[in-house]
Amino acid sequence: MKEKIKNIAMQAQIAGLALGCATGKTRSTFLKMAPLALETVRDDVLEANALDIKEAEDQGVPPAFIERLRLTEKTFEYMKKRLIEVSDLPDPIGKVIDGHVSETGLDVKRVSVPLGVIGIIYEARPNVTTDAASVCIKSGNAIILRGGKEAARTNKVLADAMIQAVKDAGLPEHSIQLLEIPGHEAVNELLKQDQYIDVIIPRGGKSLIKAISRESRIPVIKHYDGICQMYIAEDADFKMAVDLVLNSKLDRVEVCNALESLLIDEKIADDFLPIIGKHLKDNDVEIRGCMTTCKLLKYATEATEYDWSTEYLDRILSVKVVDNVDCAIEHINKYGSGHTDVIVSSSKKNIDTFVNRVDSASVMVNASTRLSGGGAYGLGSVVGISTGKLHARGPVGPDELTSYKWIAIGDGHLRE
Amino acid sequence: MKEKIKNIAMQAQIAGLALGCATGKTRSTFLKMAPLALETVRDDVLEANALDIKEAEDQGVPPAFIERLRLTEKTFEYMKKRLIEVSDLPDPIGKVIDGHVSETGLDVKRVSVPLGVIGIIYEARPNVTTDAASVCIKSGNAIILRGGKEAARTNKVLADAMIQAVKDAGLPEHSIQLLEIPGHEAVNELLKQDQYIDVIIPRGGKSLIKAISRESRIPVIKHYDGICQMYIAEDADFKMAVDLVLNSKLDRVEVCNALESLLIDEKIADDFLPIIGKHLKDNDVEIRGCMTTCKLLKYATEATEYDWSTEYLDRILSVKVVDNVDCAIEHINKYGSGHTDVIVSSSKKNIDTFVNRVDSASVMVNASTRLSGGGAYGLGSVVGISTGKLHARGPVGPDELTSYKWIAIGDGHLRE
Repeated sequence: MKEKIKNIAMQAQIAGLALGCATGKTRSTFLKMAPLALETVRDDVLEANALDIKEAEDQGVPPAFIERLRLTEKTFEYMKKRLIEVSDLPDPIGKVIDGHVSETGLDVKRVSVPLGVIGIIYEARPNVTTDAASVCIKSGNAIILRGGKEAARTNKVLADAMIQAVKDAGLPEHSIQLLEIPGHEAVNELLKQDQYIDVIIPRGGKSLIKAISRESRIPVIKHYDGICQMYIAEDADFKMAVDLVLNSKLDRVEVCNALESLLIDEKIADDFLPIIGKHLKDNDVEIRGCMTTCKLLKYATEATEYDWSTEYLDRILSVKVVDNVDCAIEHINKYGSGHTDVIVSSSKKNIDTFVNRVDSASVMVNASTRLSGGGAYGLGSVVGISTGKLHARGPVGPDELTSYKWIAIGDGHLRE
Repeated sequence: MKEKIKNIAMQAQIAGLALGCATGKTRSTFLKMAPLALETVRDDVLEANALDIKEAEDQGVPPAFIERLRLTEKTFEYMKKRLIEVSDLPDPIGKVIDGHVSETGLDVKRVSVPLGVIGIIYEARPNVTTDAASVCIKSGNAIILRGGKEAARTNKVLADAMIQAVKDAGLPEHSIQLLEIPGHEAVNELLKQDQYIDVIIPRGGKSLIKAISRESRIPVIKHYDGICQMYIAEDADFKMAVDLVLNSKLDRVEVCNALESLLIDEKIADDFLPIIGKHLKDNDVEIRGCMTTCKLLKYATEATEYDWSTEYLDRILSVKVVDNVDCAIEHINKYGSGHTDVIVSSSKKNIDTFVNRVDSASVMVNASTRLSGGGAYGLGSVVGISTGKLHARGPVGPDELTSYKWIAIGDGHLRE
């Protein structure tokens, strides 16, 4: 097993070197082929998915998990659409990032190159197979896919289709590989291949990500909590604020950019809290509030310290009244997870203060937390969201899967 | 001890948040103050250094280490000059990296911000104290310095001067801290503060870097080997090639961008090898060659597999005759360390092939390996050189100590 996994990693590195030298046009050809290859396996993949789901149901896998596992005609079409979207993005490779000609005429450029080999470890959703393959090949990286065991049949059909597209495009077939050996041992072995694999991106629950970070000798681009917070300033437009809170909280409660904590300026608390409280109550959102909130809203229960830094992923919202924008910022930087934080305000001064001082991947103004991400940010498809600051922060798309090399052209230049 | 180190890390994080919001002008003020503060401690630091050196000598520390430890009037002036150079660099913070306005008018920008807190762990050279402090404050990062025990007195005087300059500039005094608690335990405790410290940069020998990478819970920007290689193509100008080999190998043999391995195209081997061989012999450089090299140069001894991937840091050079540019590239990617590799050629085709396919931080053309680095590349002072591909590759200057945040400005934008 160890030899086999090492071999997969080595093959990926060799393919990655070739991919890194392939033209943008060849990589694009893959992205044109991929939806066609997917189309040819439409029936197979839906059939495989039905078998995966049946087995998962028989084994008593929770319904929410089954839902993530399920492929429908609609999600199938969506997967194809995403492949085309990635195809339309600009080439992230070969871009001159910056340059400099030294006093003696040495011509130096920093040029974007692929990272090399990306390992993606994911749980239920089979669409990660095609999403990740497309983003990685777009950016010239070889990819090793490791999906959840419940989606094994579905992922196999999808990965084979992607590998077919890679071959059709004239790229090395090991550009995309699916690690099929079952068991945690296989994953742990993969995480030891730091000689061949450049980065690991886990997609899934916090426990998966923690386990991988602990085991991995390869750098991991991590996505931990999304404790998204929104501060309603004293000069906020109330109607806008209500719409933003409800959209951020309720559009999809189970995702990482859903709102988890609401901060309200004390100068408007008396007026705004009852309004938003009623809307939240009408939508069956449980409120865990600070003392002032509980005084103004009978409906609220008292929050504990734990609530301010909790990602509920549920119809629950923590609510706190704060003295001013400075207190809001302090609270956000202390209790948040640096994912997405929003100010609702009409004052340039408050907005500038908030944007400058909140230390988060996404700092938004008068917008729903749900817009934080690759789509609205123009990145196209993403393979994950980073809550770390090193290398990539926020959505991880093709550009974030690049490194660079320095190219220095001289004419016999020596060090004097 | 644990409490104390946690406290240092927490203080650094708080200072880092404030630094991140300080204007470029305030950060620049520090860099104007720093050479003045250094000047006021000129006598103290030379005195402290003399004591450090005496103690090190008494303890039988090797002479090469003592040399790195030693501060002279000349190195003192050089330290001041470096501070001024960093001061003159453009502000790396607040740069709009890219931007995008969504179809619905959400205005999204990616803006450079500091990483937060940088930990620098270094060995002998006391100039790292001022170099690292200046690069970190320039880029809005708080810094925790951990120097070698042999330089303790020198580093203390230097760090105090930098802290004075930070205070004079109106920046938080904990922007720069020196971890003075002795012993490895203190370092290991520092490496656990991943809640507060964003990145660790070790400066020193390979064993130090390996130990730190193994222990650290914080991401490490690593610098391993510099197995720099040079390929002399069949169309190289012989005189240029000789000058480049000698400068790359001999300017300073003990540094990471010194030449360690020479590849010669077999089409010129008969003519070029005797010429370069004589020069190397005249300069007391030992040659470890492939079979062809040994046949042509009686002076050479036979290289083993080990030689091709060895960083000698000494007057030794491995020499191999290769069939063509493709074989050179294959050898370089297999045995090198991805630090700096050079082609000497007058053919655009060979140069393009080499530049495109060699997978190294610095790929140079007709230039000395010794020019690879912050100075010639226009970065000014650097805190290290990364042989990794993630986040930073090659020289690590102020720009490489930044992350970014996404700022999205809406007008009540919702997710539909």
